[in-house]
Amino acid sequence: MSAVTDASILQGLFSGFALHIGLHLREYRQAQTVIAVTVEPQHLNQAGNLHGGVIASLADTAMGMSGTWHADPGQWRLALTLSLNINYMAAIAPGTEVRAVARTRGGGSKIFMASCDLLDAQDRLLASAEGVFKRGRLRAQDH
Amino acid sequence: MSAVTDASILQGLFSGFALHIGLHLREYRQAQTVIAVTVEPQHLNQAGNLHGGVIASLADTAMGMSGTWHADPGQWRLALTLSLNINYMAAIAPGTEVRAVARTRGGGSKIFMASCDLLDAQDRLLASAEGVFKRGRLRAQDH
Amino acid sequence: MSAVTDASILQGLFSGFALHIGLHLREYRQAQTVIAVTVEPQHLNQAGNLHGGVIASLADTAMGMSGTWHADPGQWRLALTLSLNINYMAAIAPGTEVRAVARTRGGGSKIFMASCDLLDAQDRLLASAEGVFKRGRLRAQDH
Amino acid sequence: MSAVTDASILQGLFSGFALHIGLHLREYRQAQTVIAVTVEPQHLNQAGNLHGGVIASLADTAMGMSGTWHADPGQWRLALTLSLNINYMAAIAPGTEVRAVARTRGGGSKIFMASCDLLDAQDRLLASAEGVFKRGRLRAQDH
Repeated sequence: MSAVTDASILQGLFSGFALHIGLHLREYRQAQTVIAVTVEPQHLNQAGNLHGGVIASLADTAMGMSGTWHADPGQWRLALTLSLNINYMAAIAPGTEVRAVARTRGGGSKIFMASCDLLDAQDRLLASAEGVFKRGRLRAQDH
Repeated sequence: MSAVTDASILQGLFSGFALHIGLHLREYRQAQTVIAVTVEPQHLNQAGNLHGGVIASLADTAMGMSGTWHADPGQWRLALTLSLNINYMAAIAPGTEVRAVARTRGGGSKIFMASCDLLDAQDRLLASAEGVFKRGRLRAQDH
Repeated sequence: MSAVTDASILQGLFSGFALHIGLHLREYRQAQTVIAVTVEPQHLNQAGNLHGGVIASLADTAMGMSGTWHADPGQWRLALTLSLNINYMAAIAPGTEVRAVARTRGGGSKIFMASCDLLDAQDRLLASAEGVFKRGRLRAQDH
Repeated sequence: MSAVTDASILQGLFSGFALHIGLHLREYRQAQTVIAVTVEPQHLNQAGNLHGGVIASLADTAMGMSGTWHADPGQWRLALTLSLNINYMAAIAPGTEVRAVARTRGGGSKIFMASCDLLDAQDRLLASAEGVFKRGRLRAQDH
C-alpha cells in the first residue's frame, strides 16, 4: 500500500500541542509512522538539553498514529493512550534533529501495542518507547 | 524543613520547555513537588483533550525535581531521566487545572525513583506516573 | 464492605504459578489486595538476592486481583494484564517477607489501572509497580 | 566474536529462580541473549494461560544478561534491574515454547538499557519489554 504523501493532508493531522511544540509528520504508512522535531531553545530542559517531555510527546503521537492508520484516510481513527513507557539513553543537544519511528506490534481490534525508536540524523538511538493504546472514533467524525 | 516560597526563585527553576508549555511550580519541598498547568488550546491532542505529552512533561519535571531538592538551594542538582512510565486514566478537557504531585520513593546517592499523581481541582486522579532518575551536576554550576 | 476472610476461599484463588512460587493471599478487599512471599533459595537471582521476576509476579497478581474484586464472590472476574511497569529500589535478601499491597486507581468498566507497593516487614519500600489490565470472564465460569 | 556454546557453562549461569521456573539459556552472544521456557501447568495463571510473571522473569533475566556479556567469560558481570516494563499482546496457551530475545540498546559504562521480544515457535510476538539496568560485580567474584 502506498504512503500518504500529500503534505497538506499530513499536516492537517496535527493537533494544537503537536503544532505548538513543532512536530513534523514525515511518513505515515502501514509499516511505520515517522515524526520529527529539530531541537530549539523552547525545547530545552534545565540542563540545556532536550526536555524528556518532548521525547514523550513525539513517541506518544507517533505510536498512537501508527495503530490507527488505514489505507482509506476516511477510516483513520483517533488513538487514546493507556500506558506509555520511555527509556532515555542519551542527552540530546540543541540543533539535533530527532526522529520518532513508530510501529504497531500487536493487539486486537480495539487495543493495540506499539513501540518507537527515537533516532538522530546519524541513526544513533537516543531513546526507546513502548505503549498501549485504544482505538477511538473516526477522525472524519470531527468534520 | 520549610518550603521554598519565594516565587521568583521558584520561577527561575523552569527551563525553556517548561515555560513554553506553561508549567507553574506551586510547591517545592522535601515531602513533595507540585507543578500545575491549565489546559489551553495549545495543549490539546487531535481529539480535543489534553495531549498525553503534556502529562508526561509535567510528571517528568515534577519527579526529577522531587529527587534533587535540598534544604540549601545552593545544593539543588539537575536530574537526568532514565525511565518514565505513565498510565492515563481519563480524558482531560480544556479548562481543567492539572496538578502533578511528585514524591521521591527510593534509591541511593546517585539514582532515585519517584512517583507522581496527576490530579484535577477536585483531586480526581487523571493519570499516574513513576520514573527512575539520576542526580546530575549542581544547578549553581550553571551560573 | 467486609473482607473475604475464609482462608480456603482465598487459597482457592491461586493459580499454578502463584502456588509454584509460594505466593500467599493475605487480604482481598475493595480497598486493597495484599499478597506475600517469604524469600527462599528458589527465589534468588544470580547475585543471591530476590529475583526481579518474583517481584513482577507478586505485583502482577495483586494488581490484577485488586481490579476484579466484587462484594459478591460469584462476580469475581479474571484479569488480563496489558502493561506492567516495575521500579526496583533495593536488593532483597533471603529470609525477607515481601508484601505486595495493590490498589485500583482508575479506569472504566473494562480497562482498569492499578498501582502496587512492595514492602518488607518494617514497611520499607522495596519496589513500586503500576499496570493496565482488562477485566475478563467470571471466575465462576471455570467450574 | 563467537558465541558461548559450552552447555555446562551456560547452564551454570542460571540462578535458583531461573532454574525453579524452568528457564533455558539458548544463546548468549554480544548481539543477543535468548532464553526459552515451555509452558507447563506450574506456569499458568488463573485463566489457564501463561502467568504474566513468567514473561516478566524471562524478559528481566534475558535483558540483564544481554548488557553484562563480555568476550571473556571472566569479565561477565551481574546485572541489577532498576526498571522493567512489559506489554502483553496475546494469551499464551500451555505447551507453547516462548523465547525471550534480548538486546542491549544503549547506556554508558554503569547503566544500560535493553529491549526484549517474547516470541513463540512461529515467531509470533507475544509480548515486548524494555528495561534499565545497572552493571554490578563480576560473576567470577562469587567463587
